[in-house]
Amino acid sequence: MSGKLFVISGPSGAGKNTVLNRVITLRDRVRYSVSATSRPIRPGEIDGKNYYFVSREDFEKLIAQDALLEHAEYVGNYYGTPIEPIRRSLAEGVDIVMDVEVVGALKIKKRMPEAVLVFLTAPSLQEIRRRLESRGDVSEEKMTERLARARWEYEQAYQYEYLVINDDVDRAAAELMAIMSAEKSKMMDRFHLLKEELSCFTPQCPNC
Amino acid sequence: MSGKLFVISGPSGAGKNTVLNRVITLRDRVRYSVSATSRPIRPGEIDGKNYYFVSREDFEKLIAQDALLEHAEYVGNYYGTPIEPIRRSLAEGVDIVMDVEVVGALKIKKRMPEAVLVFLTAPSLQEIRRRLESRGDVSEEKMTERLARARWEYEQAYQYEYLVINDDVDRAAAELMAIMSAEKSKMMDRFHLLKEELSCFTPQCPNC
Repeated sequence: MSGKLFVISGPSGAGKNTVLNRVITLRDRVRYSVSATSRPIRPGEIDGKNYYFVSREDFEKLIAQDALLEHAEYVGNYYGTPIEPIRRSLAEGVDIVMDVEVVGALKIKKRMPEAVLVFLTAPSLQEIRRRLESRGDVSEEKMTERLARARWEYEQAYQYEYLVINDDVDRAAAELMAIMSAEKSKMMDRFHLLKEELSCFTPQCPNC
Repeated sequence: MSGKLFVISGPSGAGKNTVLNRVITLRDRVRYSVSATSRPIRPGEIDGKNYYFVSREDFEKLIAQDALLEHAEYVGNYYGTPIEPIRRSLAEGVDIVMDVEVVGALKIKKRMPEAVLVFLTAPSLQEIRRRLESRGDVSEEKMTERLARARWEYEQAYQYEYLVINDDVDRAAAELMAIMSAEKSKMMDRFHLLKEELSCFTPQCPNC
């Protein structure tokens, strides 16, 4: 059985990274999709782990080759999702989780309708503000901007299949894993198992 | 949040009862739907637990009142699903699981499209034969009949949302519980949580 692609979006401060790391640790046969970027590597970052770091020219080649599932430009740097490692994992039966902002997630859904979109957020916008404040270095202007962005993301969220409220990391991770498990039980992906039985099952068959 | 209705079907010998009992024991806020029947009560059976035992006349009144989610007649006795206890549980936020054969399950889906249909079966038809044989008292004629029925059920199974293969009771119960959990995370049922946040969230709001 081939793997499934799970695209997770949600406001900054929702705790997506913590929840996804928990899922990767606890669940078998799931991989985190690494994005490509043209921004320079920072101290401590590892190529192929944090990002695939490529030159601006090479990134534009990837775009031209249609080798990205989605891409966008932020403050002069490209960010995108290489399609090839994902295809390979799915073919091996390994699930993929990825953390993609809303515009990118909706582009992916258009291109791969079988992708499963999960919106993950904190129990309230107040809680998002609190979590962002506790990180310390967010100016009031940036805060207003991020909350406005969160609000816009909430308005788009009806386009997602699932909503997970991250009130507790363990609980939210368990809920996300239940979604991943259930998605693998979909009849659409499994009906062939019954069909194989049917093709064998005849009154004459000595095994049936 | 209101409860959800989970309708489980599958061939005789699939192990539905064992799996459902495990789920009822392990999962909170889930109830088993008790059917009504006009057949006489048997020694050891408890009214309201195994079935609601009613007279033929009273059963026909239930039909006339449209008080059954589905019903059918087998060898001269009526069997059906009273709608009222289900409505009450769902309103209390308690999920319902029920074991209904295929025709009844599809009728329920038509009447309550929000019902979740799960097909549960053994890993193979051979395994179903083996399990039925191990029960001891099945004649060769009955066996042929049951396997033909299983085959017909397999052909209808594409109308179900999920397929669970009962290769191991604990694993199958965990898979069914993951489906139940994931269905409660559906955006459609939860978008109001985000909407409530949005209605509050304005730049002027002192809390946001």
